[in-house]
Amino acid sequence: MASLVMPRLSLSSWAPVFKVLAVLWLVLAAFMILPWLVLLAEGDPDAHAFALSMAIVLATVASVLLLTRHVPIALKPRQMFVLTTLSWLTVSGFASLPLVLGAPQLSFTDAVFESVSAITTTGSTILVGIERLSDGLKLWRGMMQWLGGIGIIVMAIAILPFLKVGGMRLFHTESSDWSDKVMPRTRGIAKATMSIYLGLTALATLCYWLAGMLPLDAVVLAMTSLSTGGFANSDASFSAYAHQPVLLWLGSLFMLSGALPFVLYIRAMRGTPGVLWRDQQVRGMLVLLALAIGVLTAYRVLGGLPVFESLSQVTFNVVSVVTTTGYASDDYTQWGALAIVAFFYLTFVGGCSGSTSGGMKIFRFQIALLMLRNQLRFLIHSNGVFAQRYNDSILSDEIGRGVVAFSFFFFLTVAGLALGLSMLGLDLVTALSGAATAVANVGPGLGEIIGPAGNFSTLPDAAKWLLCVGMLMGRLEILTVLVLLTPMFWRK
Amino acid sequence: MASLVMPRLSLSSWAPVFKVLAVLWLVLAAFMILPWLVLLAEGDPDAHAFALSMAIVLATVASVLLLTRHVPIALKPRQMFVLTTLSWLTVSGFASLPLVLGAPQLSFTDAVFESVSAITTTGSTILVGIERLSDGLKLWRGMMQWLGGIGIIVMAIAILPFLKVGGMRLFHTESSDWSDKVMPRTRGIAKATMSIYLGLTALATLCYWLAGMLPLDAVVLAMTSLSTGGFANSDASFSAYAHQPVLLWLGSLFMLSGALPFVLYIRAMRGTPGVLWRDQQVRGMLVLLALAIGVLTAYRVLGGLPVFESLSQVTFNVVSVVTTTGYASDDYTQWGALAIVAFFYLTFVGGCSGSTSGGMKIFRFQIALLMLRNQLRFLIHSNGVFAQRYNDSILSDEIGRGVVAFSFFFFLTVAGLALGLSMLGLDLVTALSGAATAVANVGPGLGEIIGPAGNFSTLPDAAKWLLCVGMLMGRLEILTVLVLLTPMFWRK
Repeated sequence: MASLVMPRLSLSSWAPVFKVLAVLWLVLAAFMILPWLVLLAEGDPDAHAFALSMAIVLATVASVLLLTRHVPIALKPRQMFVLTTLSWLTVSGFASLPLVLGAPQLSFTDAVFESVSAITTTGSTILVGIERLSDGLKLWRGMMQWLGGIGIIVMAIAILPFLKVGGMRLFHTESSDWSDKVMPRTRGIAKATMSIYLGLTALATLCYWLAGMLPLDAVVLAMTSLSTGGFANSDASFSAYAHQPVLLWLGSLFMLSGALPFVLYIRAMRGTPGVLWRDQQVRGMLVLLALAIGVLTAYRVLGGLPVFESLSQVTFNVVSVVTTTGYASDDYTQWGALAIVAFFYLTFVGGCSGSTSGGMKIFRFQIALLMLRNQLRFLIHSNGVFAQRYNDSILSDEIGRGVVAFSFFFFLTVAGLALGLSMLGLDLVTALSGAATAVANVGPGLGEIIGPAGNFSTLPDAAKWLLCVGMLMGRLEILTVLVLLTPMFWRK
Repeated sequence: MASLVMPRLSLSSWAPVFKVLAVLWLVLAAFMILPWLVLLAEGDPDAHAFALSMAIVLATVASVLLLTRHVPIALKPRQMFVLTTLSWLTVSGFASLPLVLGAPQLSFTDAVFESVSAITTTGSTILVGIERLSDGLKLWRGMMQWLGGIGIIVMAIAILPFLKVGGMRLFHTESSDWSDKVMPRTRGIAKATMSIYLGLTALATLCYWLAGMLPLDAVVLAMTSLSTGGFANSDASFSAYAHQPVLLWLGSLFMLSGALPFVLYIRAMRGTPGVLWRDQQVRGMLVLLALAIGVLTAYRVLGGLPVFESLSQVTFNVVSVVTTTGYASDDYTQWGALAIVAFFYLTFVGGCSGSTSGGMKIFRFQIALLMLRNQLRFLIHSNGVFAQRYNDSILSDEIGRGVVAFSFFFFLTVAGLALGLSMLGLDLVTALSGAATAVANVGPGLGEIIGPAGNFSTLPDAAKWLLCVGMLMGRLEILTVLVLLTPMFWRK
C-alpha cells in the first residue's frame, strides 16, 4: 500500500477536487428541471425559484469548469477525503436554494436543515403544513432524498473502501484497489446499481399507485422509501395510510429493499438469487427485525389490541426505524414504556452496509459479537486467538479495529452532540434521541418535541446547525470527517 | 498458557470452592460483632437480629468446613470463575440477614437489594427514614460497603488478572502468574493494600469528626467514602452538610482517594511518591474531572450562582458520580438541561482500575482513544499498525480486544437491563439511568423516582431484582459472569 503515500498539498491540488464537485452540482441542477417543469405546467409562480436556483448552480459550475479546464482529474486519497466531505456539504447547500427562493421561503437555517436532512436521507423535517406545499416542492423533497440515496450507495461501493472507511471493504475487497484494471469493473457495478435503484423505485411507484395513493404521493413516497429517507407529503407522515394495511406492508417491503446491500441485487440478477438469503448480514437484519417485531407485537396484543393491526403497525414502524427511513404510521411513543426504550435502541442499529440506510449497520454488531464470543472462548481456554469467519471470509484484525473505531466514534459523536443540544436547553430525552436520530440518519427522535408526532421546527437555530453536523458526520461514516480534523492530515 | 487447560468438573470439584466461600462468610460474621456490641451497649432490642444472623452464618460455615475438612484448597481457573461470582452473591445474601431480622424488617426483596447495593458499593437505597435506624444498623450499612470496597481491590489485584478479566492485567502483568513464586508477593500487596485502606479510613473519620460530624456519622461516611459506596446516615445523603464547604471538600478528597489505584499508594509509600502523579490513568481521571467541573461550574455561575458555592457543589457531585460513590449534596437534576445530560454520561465513566470504584474505568477510554488515534493515522498513512504505549508498556492486541469486549458487553448489559425495566413500566429516563447506575455501581439515577433526591423504594420488586443482577454484573466486570453462562464453560 506504499503507493498511497500522500503528496504535499498545495492550493492547486484542490483544483481537481472542485472539478469533480462541479460535475456533481451539474447533476443536481439537472434534477431541478423536473420540479421546475411541473411548476411551469401548473402555472405556479414558484417556478421562478427553481429557474433561479438552476441559474445560480449552473453559473457556479461554469466558472469552476472554466477555471479548471486544463486540470486533469487524478485524485489521491487525501483529496478524496476532502472531495467526499465537500460533495455532501456543497450539494446540500445548493439543494436548499429552491426552499429559500420559493414558496415556503424558509430561513437560511431552516432551508439548510431541510436539505441536509434530505440529502443525507435522514428525513427530519422543520416544515409544518407540508400538504400545502407546491407539487414542485413536494417532488423536490423526494428527489433530494432519492439523489442522496444513490449517492450513498455509490460512495459505499466505489469511494469509501478505497479510503479504508466503512463496511464495504469486508464485502468487496477488490474495490479498495483503484487501479485501471479494476475501475471499469467498479463503474460497471455503479451503473448496474443505478439501474436497480431506478427499477425498484419505478416498481414501488406503481405498487403504491395501484394500492390507492395519488400519483404524486406514489412517486415521492417511492423515492423516499427506496432511499430510506422518510420524507412524506403530509405532516402526518405515513399515518394518512395507516388504515390501509396493504400500504403499510408495501411500505415495509420497499423500505427493506432500500436497506439491503445493492451489490447482492446485482449478483442475484446475474443468476444467483439465493445470494440475498445466504448473506450473513441480510440474515442478521431479518433476525433482528423478526425479534423486535415479535416482542413489540406481543406487547401490543397483550395490551388488548387486535393481532393483525398490531402486527402491521409494529412491522411498519420497526422496519422504518431499523432501515433508518423514519416514516411513522402511528405515534409509537404512545405504545408504552417498552416501546419507547426499544425504539431508542433501534435508532442506533441501521440497515446493511452498501444500502441506502444509515446507523451503525448490522455487520458491525455481528462482527462485535464474533469478537466477543472469541474473547469468552479465550477466557475459558486461554490459548491464543481463533480465526473468525464472516460471510466466508476471514476477519482480519484490521477489520476488527475499523469496527471498534467506528463504534466508539459513533457514541462519542452522539454524546458530544447531546451535550451540545442540552447546553441549548433541550431536555435529556430530546437531546439524546435527537443526537442519535441525526447521526444514525433515521429521522424522528423521541419525546414530545421531536418524536414521531412532533417536528424539528421549534428547536433553536443553533440546535438545527448542530444536528446538521451530526447528520453529515453520520452519513460520511464519521471517520471520513474526523480524518480532516486531525493536524496529521494537513501536515507534510 | 497450556497449563490452564480446564479439567473435567465433577460435583466434588465444587468442595474447595465452598471451603473458600466459608472463610469469606466467617469474615462477614466477624464484621457483625461490632454492630452487635453497639446495640447491646445501647440496650437496643435489635441486638438479637445480629446475634441471630451471626448464628445462622456461623452454623453454615461450620457445616461447610466440616464437610470439606479433607478437601485441599487448590483452585483451577474454572473454579475461580465460579468462586468469584458466588462470593459476591452469597456474601450479599448473608449480609442481608440483619435487615430482615431486625428493626427495619425489610421484605426479602428489599433486604437483598439493600445488601447487594452495599456489598457492590453501588449505594442505591430502598430505605426511607434512615435517620431513625438504630446505630447498629447505620454502622452495618457502612461496614458492608467498606467490606465490599476492600473485596473489590483484592479481587482486582489478585484474582481477575489471573482470569484475564479487568484492567489490572495492564498494570500488573506479573499478578496474572499465580505460581508459588509470585503468590507471596501478591499476598504482600494484598496486606499492604488493606493497611492503606484502613489507614485512609481512619484519617477520613478523624477529618470528618474534626470538621464537625457526629462520631457515628464520621465513621460511617468515612467507610462509605473510601469504598466509593455512597451510603449515608440520612435520607438527604450529603445534603445535610451542604452548608459546610469544608465537609464538601473533604468528602471530594476522600472519594477521590478511594478511586485511585491502590497499588500506586504502595509504590508511593515505598519511596516513589511521584508515581501517583505520573500515572497515565490518574492523570486521565484528573483531566476529566477538571473538564467536567470547569464546564458545569461555569454553567452554574453563568446561571447567576456564586462562584465558590458553585465550585464546591459541582466538584462534590461530579467527583461523587465519576468515582461511582453516589452521594448527592444537592439535587443536581435541578441544575439545568446540560447538567442532566452531563451526569448521565458521567455515570458510565468510573474511576481508576484497581480502586474501589466501578463504571467502565478511565483506562478503557484512554486505550480506546489510543486505538482510534492509531486508526486515523492508518487511514492517512495507509501503512500497517503502530505500536501503542500506555503507562510505558506496549499495548498488546489482547489488551485491546479485552477493552472492546468489556465495553460492548457493558453497553449490551445496560441496554438489556433498560429494556427489562421498561417492560415493567419504568419510563425511558428511569429505565436508562437506572440500568446505567446499577451496572456502573454508582448509586443514584436520573428522573423524579430514582434521581439524587429520590429513592429506589417505590420500584416494583421485579425491577429491584433486575437491578441486583445489574449491580453484581457490573461489580464482577461482566465477563466473569458471562463466561458462566456459556455452554462452552460447562463442557468437557
